[in-house]
Amino acid sequence: MSTPSLTPLLTLTAPAMERVNSIIIDRMQSEIDLIPTLAGHLVSAGGKRIRPVLTLAGAMIAAGTSDDRAAKLAAAVEFIHTATLLHDDVIDESAMRRGKETANTIWGNEASVLVGDFLFARAFELMVETDDIVVLGKLAGASARITEGEIHQMLIAGKPDTAIGDYLKVVVGKTAELFAAAAETGAMVAGADTATARIMHDYGMALGIAFQIADDALDYRADQAVLGKSVGDDFMEGKTTLPVMIAFADGDDREQAFWRRCLSDGDIRDGDLEEAQSMLASHNAIDRALAEARNHADHAETCLTSLPSSPVRDGLAEAARFTASRAA
Amino acid sequence: MSTPSLTPLLTLTAPAMERVNSIIIDRMQSEIDLIPTLAGHLVSAGGKRIRPVLTLAGAMIAAGTSDDRAAKLAAAVEFIHTATLLHDDVIDESAMRRGKETANTIWGNEASVLVGDFLFARAFELMVETDDIVVLGKLAGASARITEGEIHQMLIAGKPDTAIGDYLKVVVGKTAELFAAAAETGAMVAGADTATARIMHDYGMALGIAFQIADDALDYRADQAVLGKSVGDDFMEGKTTLPVMIAFADGDDREQAFWRRCLSDGDIRDGDLEEAQSMLASHNAIDRALAEARNHADHAETCLTSLPSSPVRDGLAEAARFTASRAA
Repeated sequence: MSTPSLTPLLTLTAPAMERVNSIIIDRMQSEIDLIPTLAGHLVSAGGKRIRPVLTLAGAMIAAGTSDDRAAKLAAAVEFIHTATLLHDDVIDESAMRRGKETANTIWGNEASVLVGDFLFARAFELMVETDDIVVLGKLAGASARITEGEIHQMLIAGKPDTAIGDYLKVVVGKTAELFAAAAETGAMVAGADTATARIMHDYGMALGIAFQIADDALDYRADQAVLGKSVGDDFMEGKTTLPVMIAFADGDDREQAFWRRCLSDGDIRDGDLEEAQSMLASHNAIDRALAEARNHADHAETCLTSLPSSPVRDGLAEAARFTASRAA
Repeated sequence: MSTPSLTPLLTLTAPAMERVNSIIIDRMQSEIDLIPTLAGHLVSAGGKRIRPVLTLAGAMIAAGTSDDRAAKLAAAVEFIHTATLLHDDVIDESAMRRGKETANTIWGNEASVLVGDFLFARAFELMVETDDIVVLGKLAGASARITEGEIHQMLIAGKPDTAIGDYLKVVVGKTAELFAAAAETGAMVAGADTATARIMHDYGMALGIAFQIADDALDYRADQAVLGKSVGDDFMEGKTTLPVMIAFADGDDREQAFWRRCLSDGDIRDGDLEEAQSMLASHNAIDRALAEARNHADHAETCLTSLPSSPVRDGLAEAARFTASRAA
């Protein structure tokens, strides 16, 4: 069996994604030049655009194809995501994202906050054009829960003794809620029945959880540097993520004191990241976190089994296996 | 003729505003305690709540009364406004608002950005409950234009030679668009015909312009300290507002050099605020700015003349005269 890949899903949605991309470019325009300049900086940096792909795939599951309303909705979903990235970079004081300098580094925090707000408002304008108020309600609710997840993440920062339930709430809020709403509303605008919309919601939720836990675990993997991500960003920011929680829970007094000094006190010295990685390795913490991600990815694939067979369903199932394989 | 007052309008809308206030308290709740704590800090600081009052008044103009949908919409409008205040304080690095320490001073910028995002999302959830997608589109569009206005304001900061047209675009965007949409959508959810909705839009727009220009002018008036506002905030932040633009345009080389040093270079020394106030006085710049505000307030009142006579119409007209009298 070949290594699972996102390629089939991306190929199936590629023609519709071209339309989504042109809507994105078109709707980030403003007579205030700074808006498309700043938004374009982040948009052009790429990223996988997995969320709008889920919206299009949801529509294709429901109707066999995706129309212009699904494309507008997919663009709205990507705008919500981009707005949260802009605000996250302000909050984290990040200097790099997707291998480029962050917008806040170049244009300042003020512009990043406001352009994020602009994209969020534009997302709702696009949703209004899909003329489905139930869909709009789903994405408004998801947007509120995203910010709750991010505030919750801020509150558990520096606390490696956080309960797993709190960590999972953060993962669901900051990431999985939008995955779920993206897939579900894509199906809804294409006329899905309630059961199909629910399946897409549950698939997106499980995939989003798997995706975020894997991301958190891989943040400590040295080989991530080749993907244009910096290694140890979460460590430097004092974020509480699953590998650290595992290593902390299993650690002796010396180890717990190390995590507290680095993450709670923010007192990080030369060599501490390497020390953290070595501690994680000694408790097998990254692999144990990845196993948790794999459970959720498996569940995502299981959600799809009652759908009729189709290339898109198979593409979504393989996307779940791909997320599990990242987590292997 | 007695001094015009907001009291008749506030009295007419007071019973409905009680309902709005309870919706506001109810909908800022979250299992993340920090959200109601932080949002409540700003909400409890009061403020005139003129925007939700306009929404309720719009409904009363259209239907003689305001129902629960109007109350939800009014709460949504106030949430949008509160979200922009939270983000503004981050952007301006303000330490005080409405006579209290700002949320960002107490809880940090991260929390202020995220709780602002939360309230913005909640606003859209409330709008969804009014079940009128056209109304939702109006407020989504206004929200986008608010951020454009604020970005525009940032771009003209430190530039006292800004054209009046650019200044007015900022005033319309950052303030008057929401006044207009608040009044118009209040009328719309109450079943107003197109002409009445348009009148309420135009009234709100003119009132918002008058209100903001007067606010900008009064920022330099020493007697504003009694209102719990600090004097000269805009000066300290290098904001380009109408009184400064007038004094700059009429100033000699020495005066223009003074404004450039203070506002463009941000080099503000002891006594500079008093010097600025004295320069504004010598060009009669505050009164000339207030005269501009008065023109817009007069226009707001004129907008209402074709509406049938009613206590609410008279209250709105007096609110316009009140804004003009602040600007006397």
